[in-house]
Amino acid sequence: MPLARIDLAQGKSADYRKTIGEVVYDAMLQALNAPKDDRFQVITEHPAEDFIFDPNYFGIARSKDCIFVQLTLSEGRTVDQKRAFYKAVVDGLHQRLKLRREDVFINLVEVKKENWSFGNGEAQYVQ
Amino acid sequence: MPLARIDLAQGKSADYRKTIGEVVYDAMLQALNAPKDDRFQVITEHPAEDFIFDPNYFGIARSKDCIFVQLTLSEGRTVDQKRAFYKAVVDGLHQRLKLRREDVFINLVEVKKENWSFGNGEAQYVQ
Amino acid sequence: MPLARIDLAQGKSADYRKTIGEVVYDAMLQALNAPKDDRFQVITEHPAEDFIFDPNYFGIARSKDCIFVQLTLSEGRTVDQKRAFYKAVVDGLHQRLKLRREDVFINLVEVKKENWSFGNGEAQYVQ
Repeated sequence: MPLARIDLAQGKSADYRKTIGEVVYDAMLQALNAPKDDRFQVITEHPAEDFIFDPNYFGIARSKDCIFVQLTLSEGRTVDQKRAFYKAVVDGLHQRLKLRREDVFINLVEVKKENWSFGNGEAQYVQ
Repeated sequence: MPLARIDLAQGKSADYRKTIGEVVYDAMLQALNAPKDDRFQVITEHPAEDFIFDPNYFGIARSKDCIFVQLTLSEGRTVDQKRAFYKAVVDGLHQRLKLRREDVFINLVEVKKENWSFGNGEAQYVQ
Repeated sequence: MPLARIDLAQGKSADYRKTIGEVVYDAMLQALNAPKDDRFQVITEHPAEDFIFDPNYFGIARSKDCIFVQLTLSEGRTVDQKRAFYKAVVDGLHQRLKLRREDVFINLVEVKKENWSFGNGEAQYVQ
């Protein structure tokens, strides 16, 4: 059920963006117990001037490769699951794209199970 | 109060996108008891490679016409109202645009009434 | 921790958009007690036809300069803090850009403290 919005500055290849999507999906399966194939993602490139992040907030040095991942998902994950998700995303991006671990900003938005319709106008997660 | 983010792949006409916005607004009036004229919508076209959805999740066959509708609204709607909204969106898009019912993904994000300002820097929904 | 999504119609300069981002950040510091340097913002320009708002909802006359500010932040702010934020955004935009107060639509989405990772795959706001 998660819907991911992934934002980054312009300048990366389509393959690079595709890999980000794959890593976020894999991390959902591994860490959040998301169902297989539950993949809905919007990736948006922005002119650098419209993609704004502090280069040092919380003592973390961010570069122009910084990306934002905002994931809307059903409520009910534990803090440990969320932590495992953050780590899986960052590790996967580092391994597959050499993206610096400092450059990954993640935010989760939780909603009720009834707040999803996957097609056909039905609320598939509730009876 | 709802704010709708509507995302789809590039390739549809401005009229087609406009009709999506109208259908989502009409469904809010019909099913969610939204006030008349309470219409705030952002529609975004994406390169197909950056608009990612599983073609079969939950056994629903999606095509390249798939759209995502993410609606932020005040909390308080019942499950039946949400269901009626999903159905109204899907029925309206099918009737007006021949959009396949399988191709409509919807997500709701609920917030408190005080979380809206419609202008003038005031929180119009609370005293 | 807030993540701001700022949307507006095409036609403003990069400087104009940059100033919107600064005002939203300043208002977070002033009114929401956000930490210094906690600034993460995505600004998106849209073709006018895809950026839709009612010109009169709630009796507020909106012009083509209307902007939407959607801020995801940690829960826990009082209604008065939210009100102060709305006012600070609107006042700042009016002072710095002559943006009409009627033209600022704001929505807040609240999440748990554990729902943020600022880098390194950690949940910095929880132990």
